[in-house]
Amino acid sequence: MFHHVKDLQFNARVSRPDPRFANLLLEQFGGENGELAAAMQYFTQAFGAKAAHPDKYDMLMDIATEEFSHLEIVGATIQMLLKGVNGDLKDAAEQSEIMVAMNGKAEKESVIHAALSANPQFAIITGGGVTPRNSQGIPWCASYVNSNGDLTVDLRTNLASESRAKLVYEHLMKFTDDTYIHETLSFLMTREVTHYKMFEAALNSISDNFPPGVLAADPRFLQNVYNMSAGTVKGPWNEGEIPGMDKNWVYVSDPIAQARETVGQTKLPDDFGKEVKDTEKLDKKMSKMKSMEEKKAEPSGVAQWSDYQNNKNKV
Amino acid sequence: MFHHVKDLQFNARVSRPDPRFANLLLEQFGGENGELAAAMQYFTQAFGAKAAHPDKYDMLMDIATEEFSHLEIVGATIQMLLKGVNGDLKDAAEQSEIMVAMNGKAEKESVIHAALSANPQFAIITGGGVTPRNSQGIPWCASYVNSNGDLTVDLRTNLASESRAKLVYEHLMKFTDDTYIHETLSFLMTREVTHYKMFEAALNSISDNFPPGVLAADPRFLQNVYNMSAGTVKGPWNEGEIPGMDKNWVYVSDPIAQARETVGQTKLPDDFGKEVKDTEKLDKKMSKMKSMEEKKAEPSGVAQWSDYQNNKNKV
Amino acid sequence: MFHHVKDLQFNARVSRPDPRFANLLLEQFGGENGELAAAMQYFTQAFGAKAAHPDKYDMLMDIATEEFSHLEIVGATIQMLLKGVNGDLKDAAEQSEIMVAMNGKAEKESVIHAALSANPQFAIITGGGVTPRNSQGIPWCASYVNSNGDLTVDLRTNLASESRAKLVYEHLMKFTDDTYIHETLSFLMTREVTHYKMFEAALNSISDNFPPGVLAADPRFLQNVYNMSAGTVKGPWNEGEIPGMDKNWVYVSDPIAQARETVGQTKLPDDFGKEVKDTEKLDKKMSKMKSMEEKKAEPSGVAQWSDYQNNKNKV
Amino acid sequence: MFHHVKDLQFNARVSRPDPRFANLLLEQFGGENGELAAAMQYFTQAFGAKAAHPDKYDMLMDIATEEFSHLEIVGATIQMLLKGVNGDLKDAAEQSEIMVAMNGKAEKESVIHAALSANPQFAIITGGGVTPRNSQGIPWCASYVNSNGDLTVDLRTNLASESRAKLVYEHLMKFTDDTYIHETLSFLMTREVTHYKMFEAALNSISDNFPPGVLAADPRFLQNVYNMSAGTVKGPWNEGEIPGMDKNWVYVSDPIAQARETVGQTKLPDDFGKEVKDTEKLDKKMSKMKSMEEKKAEPSGVAQWSDYQNNKNKV
Amino acid sequence: MFHHVKDLQFNARVSRPDPRFANLLLEQFGGENGELAAAMQYFTQAFGAKAAHPDKYDMLMDIATEEFSHLEIVGATIQMLLKGVNGDLKDAAEQSEIMVAMNGKAEKESVIHAALSANPQFAIITGGGVTPRNSQGIPWCASYVNSNGDLTVDLRTNLASESRAKLVYEHLMKFTDDTYIHETLSFLMTREVTHYKMFEAALNSISDNFPPGVLAADPRFLQNVYNMSAGTVKGPWNEGEIPGMDKNWVYVSDPIAQARETVGQTKLPDDFGKEVKDTEKLDKKMSKMKSMEEKKAEPSGVAQWSDYQNNKNKV
Amino acid sequence: MFHHVKDLQFNARVSRPDPRFANLLLEQFGGENGELAAAMQYFTQAFGAKAAHPDKYDMLMDIATEEFSHLEIVGATIQMLLKGVNGDLKDAAEQSEIMVAMNGKAEKESVIHAALSANPQFAIITGGGVTPRNSQGIPWCASYVNSNGDLTVDLRTNLASESRAKLVYEHLMKFTDDTYIHETLSFLMTREVTHYKMFEAALNSISDNFPPGVLAADPRFLQNVYNMSAGTVKGPWNEGEIPGMDKNWVYVSDPIAQARETVGQTKLPDDFGKEVKDTEKLDKKMSKMKSMEEKKAEPSGVAQWSDYQNNKNKV
Repeated sequence: MFHHVKDLQFNARVSRPDPRFANLLLEQFGGENGELAAAMQYFTQAFGAKAAHPDKYDMLMDIATEEFSHLEIVGATIQMLLKGVNGDLKDAAEQSEIMVAMNGKAEKESVIHAALSANPQFAIITGGGVTPRNSQGIPWCASYVNSNGDLTVDLRTNLASESRAKLVYEHLMKFTDDTYIHETLSFLMTREVTHYKMFEAALNSISDNFPPGVLAADPRFLQNVYNMSAGTVKGPWNEGEIPGMDKNWVYVSDPIAQARETVGQTKLPDDFGKEVKDTEKLDKKMSKMKSMEEKKAEPSGVAQWSDYQNNKNKV
Repeated sequence: MFHHVKDLQFNARVSRPDPRFANLLLEQFGGENGELAAAMQYFTQAFGAKAAHPDKYDMLMDIATEEFSHLEIVGATIQMLLKGVNGDLKDAAEQSEIMVAMNGKAEKESVIHAALSANPQFAIITGGGVTPRNSQGIPWCASYVNSNGDLTVDLRTNLASESRAKLVYEHLMKFTDDTYIHETLSFLMTREVTHYKMFEAALNSISDNFPPGVLAADPRFLQNVYNMSAGTVKGPWNEGEIPGMDKNWVYVSDPIAQARETVGQTKLPDDFGKEVKDTEKLDKKMSKMKSMEEKKAEPSGVAQWSDYQNNKNKV
Repeated sequence: MFHHVKDLQFNARVSRPDPRFANLLLEQFGGENGELAAAMQYFTQAFGAKAAHPDKYDMLMDIATEEFSHLEIVGATIQMLLKGVNGDLKDAAEQSEIMVAMNGKAEKESVIHAALSANPQFAIITGGGVTPRNSQGIPWCASYVNSNGDLTVDLRTNLASESRAKLVYEHLMKFTDDTYIHETLSFLMTREVTHYKMFEAALNSISDNFPPGVLAADPRFLQNVYNMSAGTVKGPWNEGEIPGMDKNWVYVSDPIAQARETVGQTKLPDDFGKEVKDTEKLDKKMSKMKSMEEKKAEPSGVAQWSDYQNNKNKV
Repeated sequence: MFHHVKDLQFNARVSRPDPRFANLLLEQFGGENGELAAAMQYFTQAFGAKAAHPDKYDMLMDIATEEFSHLEIVGATIQMLLKGVNGDLKDAAEQSEIMVAMNGKAEKESVIHAALSANPQFAIITGGGVTPRNSQGIPWCASYVNSNGDLTVDLRTNLASESRAKLVYEHLMKFTDDTYIHETLSFLMTREVTHYKMFEAALNSISDNFPPGVLAADPRFLQNVYNMSAGTVKGPWNEGEIPGMDKNWVYVSDPIAQARETVGQTKLPDDFGKEVKDTEKLDKKMSKMKSMEEKKAEPSGVAQWSDYQNNKNKV
Repeated sequence: MFHHVKDLQFNARVSRPDPRFANLLLEQFGGENGELAAAMQYFTQAFGAKAAHPDKYDMLMDIATEEFSHLEIVGATIQMLLKGVNGDLKDAAEQSEIMVAMNGKAEKESVIHAALSANPQFAIITGGGVTPRNSQGIPWCASYVNSNGDLTVDLRTNLASESRAKLVYEHLMKFTDDTYIHETLSFLMTREVTHYKMFEAALNSISDNFPPGVLAADPRFLQNVYNMSAGTVKGPWNEGEIPGMDKNWVYVSDPIAQARETVGQTKLPDDFGKEVKDTEKLDKKMSKMKSMEEKKAEPSGVAQWSDYQNNKNKV
Repeated sequence: MFHHVKDLQFNARVSRPDPRFANLLLEQFGGENGELAAAMQYFTQAFGAKAAHPDKYDMLMDIATEEFSHLEIVGATIQMLLKGVNGDLKDAAEQSEIMVAMNGKAEKESVIHAALSANPQFAIITGGGVTPRNSQGIPWCASYVNSNGDLTVDLRTNLASESRAKLVYEHLMKFTDDTYIHETLSFLMTREVTHYKMFEAALNSISDNFPPGVLAADPRFLQNVYNMSAGTVKGPWNEGEIPGMDKNWVYVSDPIAQARETVGQTKLPDDFGKEVKDTEKLDKKMSKMKSMEEKKAEPSGVAQWSDYQNNKNKV
């Protein structure tokens, strides 16, 4: 259950209207790396975590709630950057001023002219308001949200999401010199870093968190690096040790020949029999463990989400 | 700023897993008429209302917050309906049981088999969890959200949205016999009716709320009902008085001939001179009024969204 | 079956090319509140109405047909606003003039320069023609269309659609000073008002039209208004009488506490036993009535859509 | 301007409800190769053709109008295939029968059960009605429509569209044994063939219709066929004469080596000087001709779409 | 299996940065008629062709591979046109210069200013890089790809795709005066013409390639041309002989009357008995032939895609 | 430039047709975590890396090329799983067998019946072939691709993508008992793990890779963990040391009160003056360094992508 407080988490202020920046900022309201995407991703992931991982559930819901609160900060800022647009639009019978602006003869400060140039929909669809679309008018879409029912995967997804969100705020800061907005963006950018670290700590707290999911990699195909192009550039990603795996990269310099010689990897020169068997054993052990973790956490009989009794004294 | 309470607004319970109904219920999580659509619509509309219409802002944010809370109820129900799926999936090295189910020889109760049939993504993408997509896998999309910066329009939009949401819950109730879920759906369905009535009351509280927007209808074209098809069926929508307009419908039984005779409505037989002039006057008056309403509510100088001082004692 | 007449319903004229306004006008050709959305919505709804509600079917098809005719008016206007673009593009071997325009040194009147600035696809994809996309290039999408098989819902949906379409025309009028286009837009805007009134009259002609759908609201949850945020603003939407319901709002000022005390609304302090029973009776009555209305209208045996015999003398 | 006649162009009939086939048929209502896609494509193309190619405009609008009429036939058939669904849904208070169906214990003939299995939205969103979505619930999208302002391109686009539409009807016919529907589908399939032939004849009537557009191919790169894969299969597409071009294919068997030897095609061994010059001349001639064709067809001064005077006597 | 060579197939060069043209060029990277659409279309079609039509498979995969190589050329050109943007963005702590540019007081040459104006996402999302979206930011979508499992259809689809792609390159050439880019575009445009001719030759090599698919047109409905609009313009598409069909068009000048008189085409005045029977015979023959073609090409038992043995000596 | 070899990288084989599994496998052909998404993501990222990070460019293009090769493996497997469907469809005049299957009376082995049940488009659109859509028919969409012009971000994005892709293969393996397919999926799953490790090694090889982007976190807001919900669960993500940051979490247990007391974080009790200054210095240093890295790598004057000279001896 959500509760709303009218104060923003950060004191968003705006020095003067700037529809162009308002349009850019839409990326963080309705864009692929924005606050709605983050909020909905963690919120969605939280449902699956609740039974077996109540601590992670708490963390995910807290961060989701903070992201909804950031969404509000971004929306409030956009709305303030569009000050005056709706008033001008409502002056529907008075047209001359706008047409002067449209014809390029108006003062640069005409906010309605700036709004139309920045985003036609500010002027004819949203009534000078915010909208869950990105800076090019693409409606926000749940394809931006990844939630896969496995914390070793979901938390890695979140590390990536926070990284992208942080970068977008960094870029946005270059395109305004309003110091109030700078403050707000600096706050929001930093929170992405904080969340990154929280997700990292949570991932570290899971033992057996690699590879993501349950099954181990197939030892027959794990070490190979295929040189799929003419020319070779070496680096720690194709020579030396595989990080944290106690194994070395095997560089296949001519993968076409290798595929033919091994009949498409089915007649390998080396004998992986023992390693394959070990992997199978490990897979069974991990399957049992991870599966049990979920199954034993689920109540038998009627399922009930909330236990109102226990929460009575909580805020 | 949002705050989350772990108790649901309604005590969602589920008697037994039912992936097929979980899939149907996705319509109200990530579908076009679902809770996310409602929550995001009122939340988005609220930003534009805050300065000039703080009372409507309060109402919109309250209902948005309730819809987010309903989204959580729906998500929790779906998750409980999928109990067992993730546990089965995590048993990744054990396969025989599933294949028996896949080949149709298994008991009907196999939840993983039911999940796969209901929605392939439950089994291979969401890990037996909820997802902001509809019952056919279409990702939720901000095109479902309408927010146009005018309360006489936005509130009418909301009346329609609540009507559709109510109907979907009514239909959903037919497809489960779990009495716990029935209780939950009855609660959710009823809240849509309540919101409908709240929006209706709010719309009624605005004088001059018709036509939506600012400008009056053009008297030259308002009364005509064009008979665009062969055959005529009469009803109060094309004969008698126009509701609440003090005018009668004018039935144009052959619109093709009429268009030709009037040179595409530009040479009308009647003289509308006075009425057109009256409309222009009314338009100017309304423009001034509605425009002022917005403009005078906006602060001059630096804009600040929240006034932390005044809220100190509020919860 | 449709028939096309080359004369437009309104005599669309354009004083001079204006690609920027052409782009704005795309909102009403391929945008979410445009003529295609309206036409397809009423057309789709009409199929479901035909058997049981032939009078509403006639109305819906007539308005759909008029909206298709308006789509043509909008398309014709856009095409005229882009006069010259295709001719310039076809002059494919001659480039110098355009590049002068591209480099900003050209006269403002270069239509190809204006087209490219307004909408890159005018210059490289549509060949200076109209396209079913909105002012930001988003392809028209059937998510804009709502049709739910229930006239009390569909007609309310249409009231909202007409309200939004009206507002968009009102906004568009501010961005051109071409008096011919003003005339056209005034006609189109007014027709949305007329359709609004037609749908309103049709909705009024249905007895038992509230709540939309069949089932009554659950008396246990109907009257509550939950105060989901800090601070309270009172208005007719949360105090006094619920419009047309003969009941009063019940204001729940602390919904978190209320949820806990009532165990998520399942242990209510008041006894709603009688009211719930009355509602169930009403539901059964309405179900029978509304269901019969549909069922008895459907032919048994082979279904045939048209009865060519009866229409022989119709135009 | 459109006019609607309630008789369908083809006498669509249905022997018995069949929601599964109704769902398949959605492909031709709201699918990528369906009637709406065809209608909107020709309708959109027609606007650009009107000034300079009034004969093609007439053809495109006629076929567009026929496709809208076919859309109606398809919609009517789907609606009849869903007979009974809406009646069952409206029986909202009566649930037992459906649940029996849901649990698989019901007779196969339960139409609501069949509807839900075929397409969940038939049962919970569309109210047993048609919807502009495809057989998997994807909303129709204007990306299906191609209109590029050049008849040599548009007509080829249409040949492809008609080919695909024809094939889909052919496939659909395999999945019903209702002879009435067969008749309807045979009619619709055949019309696609007819339209194909009409577009072919129209394309043939344009001299200089190859290559599509205005500019000739660059003689330096036209004849080459690059062997981009291991192994060579010869056919008339890479050896012998290029159809209708009076030139032969040049087979480049090792394009990687060729790119290196020619510094990425910039140092060609052969001298194409004369041919390049001829092409430039041809390009200028064609540009002038095609550009003039457009330009001289456009009126100077105020543009007006319809000439009501001249049409007075037309039907 | 693919192999990559770092040399481009064409020596793409760029004289100077030009973010506006970079944005236009996105149409051919991530747009509906661009290289990714072409590559994915032929690649997808190739899978279905492999068993029964290995020669066409080879052609489709070769052209797909060439289109992927062209996608790389387009991407490289866009990246070079954005030179400097990423460097400016990474100078994240230095802002003054950009804001000068944002305020319009900067030199025209500021690449970051140009990037932001051309496409906001260049500046805040892609980091001055290429992206699989079109010139208006619409993400590339597989709806652009048509693959229908029938070469007489697929090849016609490809003729249309190549026609559109050719036209877009032609248009693009008008909007840059960089001679290096002209060379590149001339190469790419010409290759579309070459592919057109290859697909044409391949289609011609299939006997019985009309109508597309398997079934013949229904003789009862094939010849009719319906005059769906007021006014008649005659041309080879509605009078005289149907191209290549040995039959003449039958012009139905009043299709509404015709539909009524023939009870929706079901009571035709002419007797088509014999022709219908002939068509049925032909259909059976063609079905058997085309079906066998597919069936006998498919291996029985275990299916294996590649035969590594036979390819040993191939490059 | 790409080159294609007809042998697959892995010897994909299929024991028997299985349209249901073919449909599931579409997730990895045209789904959000599939091979096309991976291939296009790394391919797109590579363009931006080429100038300043040629070693990472080589790695990204190699992995992209391998993913395209995996896309081919997945497509080939789907095609083989649909063996027989196209042959049945082409038998267009023969219907009885299918209808028997449609009516549920047929043997389970009917492949066309299985295809239709698994995915209606297999039977009526794709002709029994593969399609770049997911298991629910959603067309692949470039929103799945993230490329942001910064390797510290892009590589983290890739770690997440590989994690999700690995999990999907793990899930898929549960739904088939065909050992040949198991082998293929085990290969593909393992390659995702290998790529994960390659990206991890590449990220580690970048010094200063945290936080992603250029700017440091704002010290005023970095350490706070806001308790956004009722109830507190402690873990390493909100108590103790922030991983690798030499700082401790600061737990804000009542963020609403904190926001009010600090006037929305603008009046903080602690003095961060020195830390803010240090951060500014660091930001300037990093900006200079990262910006230079890009700028000095870009050639001045004409840009040319490939240097054919140097590659002459490469394969």
